[in-house]
Amino acid sequence: MNTTGDQQLVKRINRSVLLRLTRARPGLSRAQLAEASGLTKSTVSLLTRDLLNEGWLREAGSAVASGLGRPSTPLFIDAEARALIGVEIAVEWVRVVGVSLLGEVLCTHEEASVGHAPGAMCAQAAALVARVHQVLVQRGLQVSGIGVGVPGAIDEATGRVRFAPNLGWRELDLLPLLARALSAAGVPAVPVHLQNEADVAALGEYEFSEDANTGPLIFVSCDVGVGAGIVLNDRLFTGAQGMAGEIGHTVLKIDGPLCSCGRRGCAEAFFGSRALARPRATARAGASFGVLLQNLWMAFDPSCIVVGGGSSLRHPALLQQALVTLAQYSASAGLALPTVRAARYGLQAAAVGAAALVLHRQLRPLHGGAPS
Amino acid sequence: MNTTGDQQLVKRINRSVLLRLTRARPGLSRAQLAEASGLTKSTVSLLTRDLLNEGWLREAGSAVASGLGRPSTPLFIDAEARALIGVEIAVEWVRVVGVSLLGEVLCTHEEASVGHAPGAMCAQAAALVARVHQVLVQRGLQVSGIGVGVPGAIDEATGRVRFAPNLGWRELDLLPLLARALSAAGVPAVPVHLQNEADVAALGEYEFSEDANTGPLIFVSCDVGVGAGIVLNDRLFTGAQGMAGEIGHTVLKIDGPLCSCGRRGCAEAFFGSRALARPRATARAGASFGVLLQNLWMAFDPSCIVVGGGSSLRHPALLQQALVTLAQYSASAGLALPTVRAARYGLQAAAVGAAALVLHRQLRPLHGGAPS
Repeated sequence: MNTTGDQQLVKRINRSVLLRLTRARPGLSRAQLAEASGLTKSTVSLLTRDLLNEGWLREAGSAVASGLGRPSTPLFIDAEARALIGVEIAVEWVRVVGVSLLGEVLCTHEEASVGHAPGAMCAQAAALVARVHQVLVQRGLQVSGIGVGVPGAIDEATGRVRFAPNLGWRELDLLPLLARALSAAGVPAVPVHLQNEADVAALGEYEFSEDANTGPLIFVSCDVGVGAGIVLNDRLFTGAQGMAGEIGHTVLKIDGPLCSCGRRGCAEAFFGSRALARPRATARAGASFGVLLQNLWMAFDPSCIVVGGGSSLRHPALLQQALVTLAQYSASAGLALPTVRAARYGLQAAAVGAAALVLHRQLRPLHGGAPS
Repeated sequence: MNTTGDQQLVKRINRSVLLRLTRARPGLSRAQLAEASGLTKSTVSLLTRDLLNEGWLREAGSAVASGLGRPSTPLFIDAEARALIGVEIAVEWVRVVGVSLLGEVLCTHEEASVGHAPGAMCAQAAALVARVHQVLVQRGLQVSGIGVGVPGAIDEATGRVRFAPNLGWRELDLLPLLARALSAAGVPAVPVHLQNEADVAALGEYEFSEDANTGPLIFVSCDVGVGAGIVLNDRLFTGAQGMAGEIGHTVLKIDGPLCSCGRRGCAEAFFGSRALARPRATARAGASFGVLLQNLWMAFDPSCIVVGGGSSLRHPALLQQALVTLAQYSASAGLALPTVRAARYGLQAAAVGAAALVLHRQLRPLHGGAPS
């Protein structure tokens, strides 16, 4: 059984378990990590030694005696050695953030986008990355990688942008363009990872969460479009063709208002940003948003639903009214609601999430569990 | 890294990969299995040796020479050594099937249920299991385990029935009752596994499928209630509280017809069996069923949707009309439809699926990928 591939798979799974535990419960000793993870003490010792050497973890200065036996040393995420860069390429702006391993935003650079030509957008993003990189290096931090979120469907296997309608991109091989632009901007070569904006926003909430809960998490993004990023079984879930979470085109009202897709009664027809721009739209939008969240609750049984995106920030009543709808159903059905809350990083959710994508990819095997 | 738990985890993942490959493509050699699975030849050799010894696989009588080198021996699932037993405890009947490792139904015993008292239902099921067990043993087959599907929510961690409204069960510890009844009926002790009926029906379609595709599969069951079983990342997906797939109470029409749950416009209000019993209900039901399937398609991006349950068999127009709705959307959106088809095992879907649950549990770790 001890082929290199198998060992690497298990090692990466277990590394991610230990790092998530240490982030959620800072100061655990090796013995406590072993107990909480179900791993043997010798496995935890080997893995923490590697994680310490590579700058993911640090030990506290002084060991703590715990009754009999050897004193145990508390372990912490090392936020002073490594950092992550997140890039959001949006329709109207490009935003780049430097983020610590604990999810703290260390610096932000953002600009209105220069247009939607892929080369120009890559050059613009690369220039901002160069500035953020410089800031991080000046703080003595090593950049582990760069994550990029775009408003479109990504093919996970090839890393191509399959379709980004609001940018006018289709079957675009973005990563090589971006690599050239980063090199031209003087950014040293580090791994670059690409994913959909709602997907990375979900990862941002998941990877930087304050608990080690692995129950399903759904990030609902309300903007021009309405989409969702889904994390389940400790992995990003993107479906058979990378299109899971296209909830803006789930129907909430058969024969309802006309949607931009040509059908009637889609979620976007109720609370996409065009629908919200109409006078007196918000009350109906809030109630129907509650119905969408309830449908997601029934279908996915998540432990947490996070609401973000520009519309949810401009119209806080959307979430408030949705919570009323959800509370009514929860009470009448006798079912405990999942946690439903606003995105922690506000407008920076996708950029910070893109940084979290670096963690997610570097700490976990890309697919399910089995090699294929 | 080489702790016993880690090795067992990887071993079970890889065993299931090899068995699914061999079921989908009978006659592969060890070298071909290595190529198709990405495992090393030595790993495949070790695992197939175990699987041969344990009666999961068999070698063909004669080796096949393949150009240079050693002749390669084709491998097949061994349907002559082991078999599975599936039990469906339904509201109106109890059904027990004997199933081969290839998904062939070898025998069926079913009866109208004697009532809903847990002890009496377990005794009735155990008597039917005893008959099926006898038939299988007479054919020289060894029973690997017994799977049980019930119409309710199951707590995966404890195996308790959390809530089965149509049986009147709540927080019921069914497995010990069943074990006693099986012992009293003279059934030798084998592992017994319990899960929700729609979940096991999904596993039946997945484990006994003719391809090794691991794309998401959704089994939609239409009966008194409407529910779904979901397989993704090569695992049954049941959500944070075991309630994922409660799609009968997703809303298809805000302010629509009254549902038994007190809300308006739920899927069950359109095509639950009570709604279908009304005159002239089927046309509207079929179109709205198409909307439900489309919503599932957008949310989960499955590679396959399977439609089953009593209502779908009594009203074949339901699926036909839903396919019209789906085809219209597929054409207008320029998106390729997932496979959408009727359940292969008809009314036996849950019983055969319960047998597949035995395979699923014995070949895979219970949760995600990481030990917790």
